[in-house]
Amino acid sequence: MATIKDVAKLAKVSVATVSRVINDADNVSDKTRETVKRAMEKLNYYPDANARALSQQNSNTIGIVVADLSDPFSGAMISTVEKVAAKNGHFLLIGNGYHNKQQEYRAITNLIEHRCSSLVVHAKMLPDDQLIKLMQQIPGMVLINRILKGFEKRCIALDSRYGSYLAVKHLIQHGHTNIGYLSSKHSISDAIDRLQGYKDALIEHNIDINDNFIAFASPNEEGGEQAMMSLLERNRQITAIACYNDSMAAGAMSVLYDNDIKIPNDVSIIGFDDLLIARYLHPKLTTIRYPLHTMAEQAAELALRLAKGEPPPTNLINVFIPTLTKRYSVNNIG
Amino acid sequence: MATIKDVAKLAKVSVATVSRVINDADNVSDKTRETVKRAMEKLNYYPDANARALSQQNSNTIGIVVADLSDPFSGAMISTVEKVAAKNGHFLLIGNGYHNKQQEYRAITNLIEHRCSSLVVHAKMLPDDQLIKLMQQIPGMVLINRILKGFEKRCIALDSRYGSYLAVKHLIQHGHTNIGYLSSKHSISDAIDRLQGYKDALIEHNIDINDNFIAFASPNEEGGEQAMMSLLERNRQITAIACYNDSMAAGAMSVLYDNDIKIPNDVSIIGFDDLLIARYLHPKLTTIRYPLHTMAEQAAELALRLAKGEPPPTNLINVFIPTLTKRYSVNNIG
Repeated sequence: MATIKDVAKLAKVSVATVSRVINDADNVSDKTRETVKRAMEKLNYYPDANARALSQQNSNTIGIVVADLSDPFSGAMISTVEKVAAKNGHFLLIGNGYHNKQQEYRAITNLIEHRCSSLVVHAKMLPDDQLIKLMQQIPGMVLINRILKGFEKRCIALDSRYGSYLAVKHLIQHGHTNIGYLSSKHSISDAIDRLQGYKDALIEHNIDINDNFIAFASPNEEGGEQAMMSLLERNRQITAIACYNDSMAAGAMSVLYDNDIKIPNDVSIIGFDDLLIARYLHPKLTTIRYPLHTMAEQAAELALRLAKGEPPPTNLINVFIPTLTKRYSVNNIG
Repeated sequence: MATIKDVAKLAKVSVATVSRVINDADNVSDKTRETVKRAMEKLNYYPDANARALSQQNSNTIGIVVADLSDPFSGAMISTVEKVAAKNGHFLLIGNGYHNKQQEYRAITNLIEHRCSSLVVHAKMLPDDQLIKLMQQIPGMVLINRILKGFEKRCIALDSRYGSYLAVKHLIQHGHTNIGYLSSKHSISDAIDRLQGYKDALIEHNIDINDNFIAFASPNEEGGEQAMMSLLERNRQITAIACYNDSMAAGAMSVLYDNDIKIPNDVSIIGFDDLLIARYLHPKLTTIRYPLHTMAEQAAELALRLAKGEPPPTNLINVFIPTLTKRYSVNNIG
């Protein structure tokens, strides 16, 4: 591959001049710029982004850590952060946390080694103390979907507990009292908060909490199938189901269909997240809206600002509030 | 942030020794290694991956270019390539082509500037001559879902035309002759080949091709809705529909339900790709399997090999063959 020296030689200028052209400096005449650019093109020379990153100690990249790349939630987050990165002339470097604290730590430090000064991190397993240490070192590191004490202004999260409460209240308002819950089996705050929101709504309406109405599994379609089967094995009286997320709802619906249980006539079901799939299930899924697009966009913009040493915007929202999206999967009991 | 000099000073060794520890060189005693590692930890020193990339002219990253990050096909591809990257101690750098030839070119050259020596590229819009020039410069660049003349051994693709033929033949074997087709509106080989496969099957069975049975839209759920509405507006006789992909099929199914048209009793439908969503639609979607996971894995491994100057494996499959996945969305006409 051609080097900067080859370019300088062909353009009959100094290496410093080529460097100035690459970095779009002012003190180069248009004619020289043209000559250098032609030489670069002729030699197929690509300026070294790593050299630039090294000299500037900043890599022109936003780093993002997601929990699981194959999950549509991560996909939506990446796609939004990439748009912000592209708008700011940045590239996206991705680390995968795999729902594991060692991997999360490795993913974050890898991005730091690549000198990403802006980081959007979705890490639910890493203990507070380790995360605090990293947050102290990297001013442009922002957490999504987690509130870390002492760093609230650099966290963007959702009130998941309230969202789940809202979902179950919606079922209760349709006359349901035998309400099952399909929970994520991961011991992260989202899982705990959403399960608690389910219980909050039951308690508020004087409905007993029955452990046989709750099943735990992986927070994806297959997990939804397993959890739904486990509920069906234990109960005949359930008339409505709240789910940890839309993916689990999709899995549950497929099991209900296989068992000739009609939705919503026999059983009502409600999701969480309002991912694309919710609109294409049959019936279209009533769910709780997670404003992920807005949240990820704000997180990426905040990370870029903080990395430049600017303060967070004064009107920044740190805790978003979920809302109800009514479709056709919830009916009155009867 | 602490520098390599700070580490050397604290550990009371030379900078060169610290560098040897970072690069896992042999000629360092265990005791010195331990001392240096402790100093790095104490100072929160992160070795500069860009410096390593610069000195080695190789960035420890696999670059990937996808057509559209928000599309589940791209998500599945990224997730697979990331697994290969992680297994080889590499990071993933992502470029988005946005179905646009300028953006595709920019995404590829950006990855080259970051000195990704292994590239997995899904670029459908970039003309052959530009792509050939890039392939000549970067030996570790591999194309996915495209065959480039002269570089066949560095391309991994699917016989899309045959896949679509297989889908339509399956409908014909169930007695259908009035078969609609929902096509992608993008003028890329996938769209052209799959439409041609539809026509191949009709011609083979002496069924007339009727332009009113074909609708073009974006290759996603919304596009599927639009294309399905456009077919319904023009026809009453269609009894079966073949789709460019599963996402369009999902959109079409939602329109059919809205119009009280029963699947598969009134209308049979078949998808393409066999993405996760196909298993959670109702009824579960019969579709054509795109072995994307295997293909992306092979492409990433091939890119790593070629970047190291090794030849492609002799048993490498360059053109994969789609197969039929039967579920419950296709019925005999009746």
